[in-house]
Amino acid sequence: MKVTFTDGKEITVLENESLHDAFKRQEVYITASCGGKGTCGKCRVRIVNGDYKCRSYGKISQEDRNRDIVLACQTFAEGDLLVDIPVESRLSVGDKIAISRSKDLIELLKTYQATISPLITKTPLRLPPPTIDDNISDLERLRRELDTREIELRYSKDFVSRMPDDLRKFDWNVTLCYQDDSAEALFLEPAEAKGTRYGISVDIGTTTVVLYLIDMANGDVMDVASTYNSQMRYGDDVITRIVHATEGGGLNDLRKAVVTDINDLISPLTARHEIEPRHIESIVISGNTTMTHLFWGFNPAHIREAPYIPAVNYFPVWKASETGIRTGKNTPVYTVPCVASYVGGDIVSGVIATMMHRNPEISLFMDIGTNGEIVIGNNDWMMTVACSAGPCFEGSGIKYGMRATDGAIESIRIDPETYETEIKVIGETKPLGICGSGMIDAISEMFLAGILDQRGKFVRETASSRIREGEDGTEFVIYHNEKGDIVLTQVDIENIVRAKAAVYAGVSLLLKEVGFTLDMIEKVYIAGGFGNYLNVERAILIGMLPDIPKERFQFRGNTSIAGAYLCLLSKDMRREAEDVASRMTYIELSAKGGFMDEFMSAMFLPHTDMEQFPTVQTLLEKKRS
Amino acid sequence: MKVTFTDGKEITVLENESLHDAFKRQEVYITASCGGKGTCGKCRVRIVNGDYKCRSYGKISQEDRNRDIVLACQTFAEGDLLVDIPVESRLSVGDKIAISRSKDLIELLKTYQATISPLITKTPLRLPPPTIDDNISDLERLRRELDTREIELRYSKDFVSRMPDDLRKFDWNVTLCYQDDSAEALFLEPAEAKGTRYGISVDIGTTTVVLYLIDMANGDVMDVASTYNSQMRYGDDVITRIVHATEGGGLNDLRKAVVTDINDLISPLTARHEIEPRHIESIVISGNTTMTHLFWGFNPAHIREAPYIPAVNYFPVWKASETGIRTGKNTPVYTVPCVASYVGGDIVSGVIATMMHRNPEISLFMDIGTNGEIVIGNNDWMMTVACSAGPCFEGSGIKYGMRATDGAIESIRIDPETYETEIKVIGETKPLGICGSGMIDAISEMFLAGILDQRGKFVRETASSRIREGEDGTEFVIYHNEKGDIVLTQVDIENIVRAKAAVYAGVSLLLKEVGFTLDMIEKVYIAGGFGNYLNVERAILIGMLPDIPKERFQFRGNTSIAGAYLCLLSKDMRREAEDVASRMTYIELSAKGGFMDEFMSAMFLPHTDMEQFPTVQTLLEKKRS
Repeated sequence: MKVTFTDGKEITVLENESLHDAFKRQEVYITASCGGKGTCGKCRVRIVNGDYKCRSYGKISQEDRNRDIVLACQTFAEGDLLVDIPVESRLSVGDKIAISRSKDLIELLKTYQATISPLITKTPLRLPPPTIDDNISDLERLRRELDTREIELRYSKDFVSRMPDDLRKFDWNVTLCYQDDSAEALFLEPAEAKGTRYGISVDIGTTTVVLYLIDMANGDVMDVASTYNSQMRYGDDVITRIVHATEGGGLNDLRKAVVTDINDLISPLTARHEIEPRHIESIVISGNTTMTHLFWGFNPAHIREAPYIPAVNYFPVWKASETGIRTGKNTPVYTVPCVASYVGGDIVSGVIATMMHRNPEISLFMDIGTNGEIVIGNNDWMMTVACSAGPCFEGSGIKYGMRATDGAIESIRIDPETYETEIKVIGETKPLGICGSGMIDAISEMFLAGILDQRGKFVRETASSRIREGEDGTEFVIYHNEKGDIVLTQVDIENIVRAKAAVYAGVSLLLKEVGFTLDMIEKVYIAGGFGNYLNVERAILIGMLPDIPKERFQFRGNTSIAGAYLCLLSKDMRREAEDVASRMTYIELSAKGGFMDEFMSAMFLPHTDMEQFPTVQTLLEKKRS
Repeated sequence: MKVTFTDGKEITVLENESLHDAFKRQEVYITASCGGKGTCGKCRVRIVNGDYKCRSYGKISQEDRNRDIVLACQTFAEGDLLVDIPVESRLSVGDKIAISRSKDLIELLKTYQATISPLITKTPLRLPPPTIDDNISDLERLRRELDTREIELRYSKDFVSRMPDDLRKFDWNVTLCYQDDSAEALFLEPAEAKGTRYGISVDIGTTTVVLYLIDMANGDVMDVASTYNSQMRYGDDVITRIVHATEGGGLNDLRKAVVTDINDLISPLTARHEIEPRHIESIVISGNTTMTHLFWGFNPAHIREAPYIPAVNYFPVWKASETGIRTGKNTPVYTVPCVASYVGGDIVSGVIATMMHRNPEISLFMDIGTNGEIVIGNNDWMMTVACSAGPCFEGSGIKYGMRATDGAIESIRIDPETYETEIKVIGETKPLGICGSGMIDAISEMFLAGILDQRGKFVRETASSRIREGEDGTEFVIYHNEKGDIVLTQVDIENIVRAKAAVYAGVSLLLKEVGFTLDMIEKVYIAGGFGNYLNVERAILIGMLPDIPKERFQFRGNTSIAGAYLCLLSKDMRREAEDVASRMTYIELSAKGGFMDEFMSAMFLPHTDMEQFPTVQTLLEKKRS
């Protein structure tokens, strides 16, 4: 039988084969499923046409059932089907690209000359079996051998409890697995334990969670998975979540939400690669300070109140069993260190991923996610600030916003004469929404075409049917579609302008603080959830990025996961991250005057002070003449 | 209303006052109750006569209910009562004596010049509150202060989780409580935390569990409680329990049994002294190697099989929450170190309690419990052996055997002419049974009176009605009682002779091993469950103790709990215990030939080789002439 997707693609489905399995067999990936067990409820698809039967509907509401929304893993075709995969069930194109990028990460590790050294150290020990004359206890026998190697460890009750039987089962010829930083013995293995060992690095973003599955032997990125951070149901930004955390049980809701997301990402990966979860022996977490606190279940309340103090920046290595992550229970969990309440491990990850702290040239690092964090500096010094951009570039809070995944409009051209649009869609499918880079493109093109004025307001006299009154006010039709046009509304545009203004104000204020001008910046690293496509010229045009020659910009994608990857693989990189965190000087914007002024000045396209954007000024003058 | 006990004592009981409360008010102590909540089921008494009502019967069987067995805490008098307190519900007289002995323990601590230093170290810290300019995280603030004092600790997730709110609640003026050996931060307190802090030391014997409640400020023994070790339901001796531990779930049965006993002892003590269990901040456990393993839930199987290897002798300090003991969950638990599979922390405790390891004179230490352990040595060297005596001296396996508690016959004289007996009963009540010291007295008197021959067999031609055929074979009536005579049977006597033979064989073999003769022994310390009364001459007469001048013997009672007390109060003493354990050389008797020969030779009264017992020989010759 045939399954046709609403974007035109076709695959086959066998009898008694679930849609989920058919998709998987033919490389149509859908997000964060529980591996097809019907429990996670994330593989929702809509059967537009055709006969089918469902084994179970899980938690799908009656209303959705009536609209033929089903769980792909519980649904079987009874003839040809026309199927629509909703945005939220799609695997991000970023995930696919990330795998292709893994070679770069291995190269980066080589550039650092960092050796692969997981969180677990493994030492083979051949112990003399006990005799009547050499009858010290098992633990003392182990310690006697370790003393000769000058290894001093702590032994948990759990370790000691399993040790006597393991020593005898492995015939006194064992591999001791321990955690170096916490100096704790974790478990014993037979001397020649077989099988690959795995690690996972996790980027916990405010909006998305991304996970890499790594082969610890060689650093290969075996697979990638990502999902929206389920904490979103408790609020879009960190402040709302902190508020929720302080309300009865809220902290645990948030902690459980993200841990469940991570488990839901791990489970299909281990199933797909036929890995036992207990063979995942290292975990590294990278996220902003609030996300990191919520992951560990630490009250983030004091992050929000002056003087904005996190519970901890340098996290001890704790165990997976203390987090609820379902891997080996003794699996060590390393947290990329944070700098301050609003500059977290994701930014430290970004710095080590770009190596800006190793080079003498002055660089600017900008991570544009739900929060915008900016770092300036070189191998000698680093200063950093943070500002709240909001989640719009990641697709949230924008009527047709979506993540940079299949179906997202990632670039737009508008004919300044006819106002007709030309779009580019990720995955070359039918457009389903618009992602961050598409939004920047759209605003800049509308501005250039005269559809938007400098304040970001629609110029009502524009002669185009694409500008119209919609249910949410004035809107611009980016894409006409029988099933519903894709539009940007005035409210959307205001959100985007606010977000870009926050980012630029942060850059401005940081430069002022260090007494630098834009021409002194030799390199700008952009990180964030823009997928792989950020048109720098357009971002400068709307005044989000500073007006610096284009060739100085480098787009680096998700540098948080890249840093987590580096720290997962090498102790050298973990020390590097800790060193970077300690070297960054954080400037609390709220403690400085002037942010509001900078922000208000940046609420224009590109800016009230056109002298800061000479190339845009030239372009606009050329256009006018 | 009046309550008369079967031993004649009288107390009053008020309306709506439970019998338990009435007993307590008038200092009639009964064992290990849950403080009168009706849950532990240990305060069983029998109402011999009178009207009463019961609120609940707990787990008392229908058969026992028909016999008017009730829970004292659930029972209310409705008139005058005649009440029988069964042996197992009585508080040991040893418990009462132990409190009076606590002065000696404080003196001992002084002799050692040991300073009071609990398992928790408390350091007051006045932290500068955070500001915008000094905005490091809470944990780094704490560590910065500790760095100046060169204190380096580990921080659990649990500690970090509670830290931010505690720091603010206590206004940055805190006391940090940490565990020194494991170098772990435990919790924060306000700078001027009020209220006494408590500790408990526990002797886990194979047959009995004894617990001291200690005021950590001055070392006062505030109270004492003891109970039979409930593991007895799984077997009388360590070997049977090890076998049970290796059967499905058995290990956990045993672990839970003793932890429940300890909790059942703690609960009425904390209730009686109005202490919050979380204020019990230190715990020390002392027991033989198997008891210690079972307490921690470690598989003891390899203790039983050659070459007899324990999992661990030097136990790390772990936490109460890992044991199930209901005190503060972070309360550190120290385990007095063991020497080998059959010489445990109880013996190390014994050595430090006697100070034999500090004196140049050669001493012998004998702990006679279910196991017999013997140490010989001085401040230069120590050797030790163990033998299995069986639980008979603690009352188990003997028809009328009981612990050295109220109602126990502790000494006996038999008129060699009339065979009439004269007994002394602990607590000066009606006799209920016979304890260890009574058994030794009885055997020696029967032997001297010619009732027993050298093989421990009844001389059938003895002209006394006290020797008769009972349901378990030939028996001697120690005490005539309308409700049932108290007797010693041939089987009992064989058990006792076997036990004393094992102990003496151990002493003999150890002396041979070190090449010493009895006259070189300058001091003999006797420890064990004999209450306070062990007649040394009688014990020599039956050949249990070696024939050494009486003045060289010292009876020291329960030295296991004394050692646990010392280790609870002082870090110096914990180091002392570890040093003693490492200095003791263990001789595995099963690895040496000759134990069986020594044992068989000792199965006579006093011994087959009468030359080893010259004073007994003289006495017997005098008697014959």
